[in-house]
Amino acid sequence: MDLVTSELAQIHQGAAQIRDGEVSTYLPQLAAADPELFGLAVVSMAGNVYRAGDAAAPFTIQSVSKPFVFALTLAELGLDTVLRNVGAEPSGEAFNAISLEVGTGRPDNPMVNAGAIVTSSLVPGDREEKWGRIRHTLSAFAGRTLEMDEDVCATERAGGDRNRALAYLMRSAGSLVSDADDAVEVYFRQCSLVVDCVDLAVMAATLGNGGVNPCTGVQVVPGLVAEHVLTVMATCGMYDYAGEWMLRVGFPAKSGISGCLTASSPAQLGLGAYSPRLDHRGNAVRPVAAARELSQRFDLHLMHDLGLSAPTVFYETDEPDATGGGTTSLRRLQGEIEFAAAETVLAALEDVGRAGTRLVLDLSHVTRLQRLAAAMIDARLAALREEGVSVVVTDRSGRHLLSAVDRSSQDLRAELAARS
Amino acid sequence: MDLVTSELAQIHQGAAQIRDGEVSTYLPQLAAADPELFGLAVVSMAGNVYRAGDAAAPFTIQSVSKPFVFALTLAELGLDTVLRNVGAEPSGEAFNAISLEVGTGRPDNPMVNAGAIVTSSLVPGDREEKWGRIRHTLSAFAGRTLEMDEDVCATERAGGDRNRALAYLMRSAGSLVSDADDAVEVYFRQCSLVVDCVDLAVMAATLGNGGVNPCTGVQVVPGLVAEHVLTVMATCGMYDYAGEWMLRVGFPAKSGISGCLTASSPAQLGLGAYSPRLDHRGNAVRPVAAARELSQRFDLHLMHDLGLSAPTVFYETDEPDATGGGTTSLRRLQGEIEFAAAETVLAALEDVGRAGTRLVLDLSHVTRLQRLAAAMIDARLAALREEGVSVVVTDRSGRHLLSAVDRSSQDLRAELAARS
Amino acid sequence: MDLVTSELAQIHQGAAQIRDGEVSTYLPQLAAADPELFGLAVVSMAGNVYRAGDAAAPFTIQSVSKPFVFALTLAELGLDTVLRNVGAEPSGEAFNAISLEVGTGRPDNPMVNAGAIVTSSLVPGDREEKWGRIRHTLSAFAGRTLEMDEDVCATERAGGDRNRALAYLMRSAGSLVSDADDAVEVYFRQCSLVVDCVDLAVMAATLGNGGVNPCTGVQVVPGLVAEHVLTVMATCGMYDYAGEWMLRVGFPAKSGISGCLTASSPAQLGLGAYSPRLDHRGNAVRPVAAARELSQRFDLHLMHDLGLSAPTVFYETDEPDATGGGTTSLRRLQGEIEFAAAETVLAALEDVGRAGTRLVLDLSHVTRLQRLAAAMIDARLAALREEGVSVVVTDRSGRHLLSAVDRSSQDLRAELAARS
Amino acid sequence: MDLVTSELAQIHQGAAQIRDGEVSTYLPQLAAADPELFGLAVVSMAGNVYRAGDAAAPFTIQSVSKPFVFALTLAELGLDTVLRNVGAEPSGEAFNAISLEVGTGRPDNPMVNAGAIVTSSLVPGDREEKWGRIRHTLSAFAGRTLEMDEDVCATERAGGDRNRALAYLMRSAGSLVSDADDAVEVYFRQCSLVVDCVDLAVMAATLGNGGVNPCTGVQVVPGLVAEHVLTVMATCGMYDYAGEWMLRVGFPAKSGISGCLTASSPAQLGLGAYSPRLDHRGNAVRPVAAARELSQRFDLHLMHDLGLSAPTVFYETDEPDATGGGTTSLRRLQGEIEFAAAETVLAALEDVGRAGTRLVLDLSHVTRLQRLAAAMIDARLAALREEGVSVVVTDRSGRHLLSAVDRSSQDLRAELAARS
Repeated sequence: MDLVTSELAQIHQGAAQIRDGEVSTYLPQLAAADPELFGLAVVSMAGNVYRAGDAAAPFTIQSVSKPFVFALTLAELGLDTVLRNVGAEPSGEAFNAISLEVGTGRPDNPMVNAGAIVTSSLVPGDREEKWGRIRHTLSAFAGRTLEMDEDVCATERAGGDRNRALAYLMRSAGSLVSDADDAVEVYFRQCSLVVDCVDLAVMAATLGNGGVNPCTGVQVVPGLVAEHVLTVMATCGMYDYAGEWMLRVGFPAKSGISGCLTASSPAQLGLGAYSPRLDHRGNAVRPVAAARELSQRFDLHLMHDLGLSAPTVFYETDEPDATGGGTTSLRRLQGEIEFAAAETVLAALEDVGRAGTRLVLDLSHVTRLQRLAAAMIDARLAALREEGVSVVVTDRSGRHLLSAVDRSSQDLRAELAARS
Repeated sequence: MDLVTSELAQIHQGAAQIRDGEVSTYLPQLAAADPELFGLAVVSMAGNVYRAGDAAAPFTIQSVSKPFVFALTLAELGLDTVLRNVGAEPSGEAFNAISLEVGTGRPDNPMVNAGAIVTSSLVPGDREEKWGRIRHTLSAFAGRTLEMDEDVCATERAGGDRNRALAYLMRSAGSLVSDADDAVEVYFRQCSLVVDCVDLAVMAATLGNGGVNPCTGVQVVPGLVAEHVLTVMATCGMYDYAGEWMLRVGFPAKSGISGCLTASSPAQLGLGAYSPRLDHRGNAVRPVAAARELSQRFDLHLMHDLGLSAPTVFYETDEPDATGGGTTSLRRLQGEIEFAAAETVLAALEDVGRAGTRLVLDLSHVTRLQRLAAAMIDARLAALREEGVSVVVTDRSGRHLLSAVDRSSQDLRAELAARS
Repeated sequence: MDLVTSELAQIHQGAAQIRDGEVSTYLPQLAAADPELFGLAVVSMAGNVYRAGDAAAPFTIQSVSKPFVFALTLAELGLDTVLRNVGAEPSGEAFNAISLEVGTGRPDNPMVNAGAIVTSSLVPGDREEKWGRIRHTLSAFAGRTLEMDEDVCATERAGGDRNRALAYLMRSAGSLVSDADDAVEVYFRQCSLVVDCVDLAVMAATLGNGGVNPCTGVQVVPGLVAEHVLTVMATCGMYDYAGEWMLRVGFPAKSGISGCLTASSPAQLGLGAYSPRLDHRGNAVRPVAAARELSQRFDLHLMHDLGLSAPTVFYETDEPDATGGGTTSLRRLQGEIEFAAAETVLAALEDVGRAGTRLVLDLSHVTRLQRLAAAMIDARLAALREEGVSVVVTDRSGRHLLSAVDRSSQDLRAELAARS
Repeated sequence: MDLVTSELAQIHQGAAQIRDGEVSTYLPQLAAADPELFGLAVVSMAGNVYRAGDAAAPFTIQSVSKPFVFALTLAELGLDTVLRNVGAEPSGEAFNAISLEVGTGRPDNPMVNAGAIVTSSLVPGDREEKWGRIRHTLSAFAGRTLEMDEDVCATERAGGDRNRALAYLMRSAGSLVSDADDAVEVYFRQCSLVVDCVDLAVMAATLGNGGVNPCTGVQVVPGLVAEHVLTVMATCGMYDYAGEWMLRVGFPAKSGISGCLTASSPAQLGLGAYSPRLDHRGNAVRPVAAARELSQRFDLHLMHDLGLSAPTVFYETDEPDATGGGTTSLRRLQGEIEFAAAETVLAALEDVGRAGTRLVLDLSHVTRLQRLAAAMIDARLAALREEGVSVVVTDRSGRHLLSAVDRSSQDLRAELAARS
């Protein structure tokens, strides 16, 4: 067993001890779920899948469909258009709250029922077209064709008066502009899609991977859409536990009344979890506990301060030229360079600058150079050139990261390589 | 003018065009502010200060004091104790909302007035001791001794009935356990501390720097406290604009009714901004616009997908030994290695493993090795050793990042250095 | 012109000066109303009709239908059954408020939209049967067959999403148990019935006349139902102006968004009023002003203390019998005798009671003898008889008001008549 | 035992069977009350006192002080001034609700805590003057000097943070304009006055008697003030049971958390009741049940239709004059004559009116003639006179009820008396 699977097994074993909470009675099908079922799945950015417990047990996706339909809508219409009809504010309220923004009639956010109904209504097309697009997109997020549980959907439909009420209320308030019945029907269907923990983990990983499914390689939604969806999940995904979830766990998530949870650690992994017992806020008890433990073991909290790293400028030397008169200064950089790291580079270039000196800046071990950081360094190099310094930027990786790369740098590459 | 200052000047110039909003009339002193004042300051993790406009104009800190007093309370009492008296949920409500959690009587979060009064009341000591600690802590965050505006404080005190009402309400509900008058008095004083944009930028940078003031080097609060404060700022800092702020700007912030704003991009920078005109939610119009522009230019959005970086395993080779029979595999790593990167390392070690082979793993350009990632790699190395592979970990940086470093690796260092 | 018509004309003239308020834009047909239209009608318990201004101008009844459909439901199902599905509490909220009682899901009261929809849904039968009964009952209240404005109804139906939302919400909460669409459809129709001021005055007079239409003599609903409807109109009929209406005007009323108002002064009169301009609470401005003036001129406030009246015992004498030994005491009563008046009767009987005396109690001018008052007097007479007093009750009106009337009283009637 | 006492004893016995509800734990002194205590007292307009059970058991008046302090404030300042600071709308909310009117900051009504604090603050004078006036007025309502329970007051004061919160909130909102601490202190004191059931019955009877204490004969407040107080009690006195109370019981009341209840049937009686166990809305269980039974037995419901009474015109005859040519019409009236009865009088005068006729209108048994009714009859008489009818109004009671009394009527009196 690999270490990640082993960690996941330990997390599963720990959370399985918890028997608090109650299985939802919202639908008879949910109420009939075995309360002891408990699955976990983690999918990495590399598309690897790790499983623990009942990771293959099927369940209906319910509210976890919301962020993914929101993603579809954003991809189709853009953020500004979507926000005209649904807000993005955490409400501090329960999932089925009735509160529309005064003046606009907008529901609080796309993660509560009202907002999700508006979101589904914004998907272009008539009822069947909407449904086709939604099913197609959620399947693309999961990397396989998802099927609907007809039985659950029929029950949702039969008992869906509160959601119908929300739809008509929003129509009267102007935030729901399509047919109310269509919006609710499509919403019931999306909630009735059948998934398992691995599906949810892949879907979350796709959001955390800039919209690209790490298993299939398909770009499901643009990166900016994924960024927006993750943001809304971070502030609104866990109902009235959203704030404490961010404190205790610290990465975007969404829970569903069937006992499922999806959570996405950007650029790291997606988590899918399932266990039917819910706490009084409607979040699944064991999945929440497991996510909290995962966050600690994997250092996934977005605000976690990672502490010191190795220096960006890992090597610097200023050697007098053998022929006298000049100096060759070498600065070798490594790692990710954004604003903060760029500042340390500029500091390391402070001494350079007398006429006749030569500067060699080696970017070979830079793993990422952020736009502004590049501009900051570039500006400094340009100034040095104006002062008469001969600047050479080397990059054995073959990438040309800085715009102001001296043409002559090519010539120096061999010399530098020999020297290092 | 350096590039950062130049960027800041452009951002300032852009936002200065906006003349929307109204100066607060909450206090006569606020109402008397020159509406055209507009300052910006950025402080980096290196402690560098960048300024634009009226960055030295003084103003009272008002609600921007809240996260820093919350930090003090967390440092004194710990998260669990503090959360017994104040929640951490975004309320979707205005700054002066009266809504206490049913059952516990807790205010929604420490960023609304009610929560801030509880926070201040939790600071140990009597009235003057509380005040002493608060002033000391906020001064440490700012890196200089802050003074109170006696005149503003007197006005706050005279007109502070709503805050008194909140205090008594919370006392009756059990969430405020100290003297109500003391709590409110201390709260009025902290709101009356005089700061400028640079102060706010330093304070925010301190939070983003793991609690260490980047200018003075003082550890003001523990790193975990800074993490918690940033999280609550992210979800609750901008009142009922919190959700859209995270969408549009994307890093933790707090606004004050004087027109000020502090925002912290973890590990990057702190922003201080000031301009008196407020929007209808009580956030300063120009500072919000400036922060949004800064976020885009500096790539500061927490959910922003940075796209591809250079490979973690930047060099790999498997050379048959000259003497035959064996192979020496070299794997050279670079950059930050967390879970996702560790996976690619493991993938690069997949082929290694026949008896008689030798593995050299070079960590010299690894800038940070996350705990779990280290354990993942370590576990793989231990397995290889069990299979008979001779493993050597090299690290020219002199750090010993992996626990399972082969003692013999020291011997190989020279050879490796020569080869590279 | 008779005095009542003349008073009404003065009231009309006074209120016609008011041009405040805005015509409702809820429906285009309402928005198109001539804002200067202003009619008043008063119908007395004797069925007389008094008119002023545009008393014959037609308009849709809108929310004024609510108390009359409530009356129908009470008559069919009884108070306890109806209250299981709709409350009777003033909400202090607007007409279209969404607030259901926690636990029961009941709307606040039958005078707000939600409660009225439940009320209509409780009318027995399918959609057309419900509608038939409602139209029949409201027509009986008005004393003529009312017609529906098909055009208004179609518009209500087209724009009725908020009411549909309320219906579905109550179905999900369990307080609306019939088909939601049927309930809303029937509600739209009842609101679209066309009436004029005289109709509304007759309808109100019917409620104030114990459920008997004073013009047609038809008992539309039982007296107890009328009592219940008047009570709910008193506390809930004027939305969030209900309390001040009772202070300023002081008798049960209901307003409608078309600008109409019905008000009922029990045992006195019914008022119908119409003028399209509404205040911000949705009550018609001129009708409210006219009702207030009417209340003052006609002394209609329910809590108005009427001050002293003539004594109940208007004549008392104790004459020694001509034959000696005995006394004949005469007590003559007048007016309405309830508890308070009965007490004064008992006080006047205090001196009576020695053996050998004769008591003659004359009820000829008693206009009403309340049950308990009768029992009080009766008990006293029985006690006197036990003490040996010969009691004779006379009643020239031929009514036998007291149960314990002495048989011998018949003999005394002539004597008494002669004496008086 | 008189009948009223006997009825009261039966009502007491019936309600004493109820053991539902819980004694308030708001104050330790309340919690220590014997839950079985149960007293009833009725005081009539004649000042008679009827008792059942523990009618002399003392308790603190608590919220039942509210309507009487409201009366004091109305008497001092007038309705319009008082309504500027406190509303008169039933809120549908609990006694300690925090909801102020948007825009004005007014509490809902004077019967909830917030409104009562404003009411007390409006009493003129400083703290001790306010208190002096309040104690004086409540004592005048009760007809004896009331004492404060110092112990209860101290406990109220110590635990009164919620009320302090309300006071400060209203100060900040502008509806409470005096010192917040003074207002709350005075409110605590008034709640701590010690009364018994007889006191509460006398107080209620005073309100129902036009402000005149029926036992002492003192005019405590003007009649109009009593009318206003009764109206507000009718709509707001029983918290969120106000609407159903009016349906089931039907006359103005106010309950207190000590388990007490006062209720006033205008022109009939005052009820005082006490038993510590409260229902979930804070109303005393047995007192509510007893009041409901009392209402039914005594016919006290304000909306109760009393049905037919004897005719107003009880005798009419038109006799040809012995001398020929003319006619003498006699119309004899009885009972209370308001608008509705006046109409029947006019109807009885319809046939009168040919020249040469004589009309004799006998008002001797009219017990009350309402202003408008008098004007209506008067106008008809004037018209008859214009037509040449000789009108004589007789009134053996010696009152001159109609303004247009024919001077010659004096002459006819003897004749009429002989004829009747």
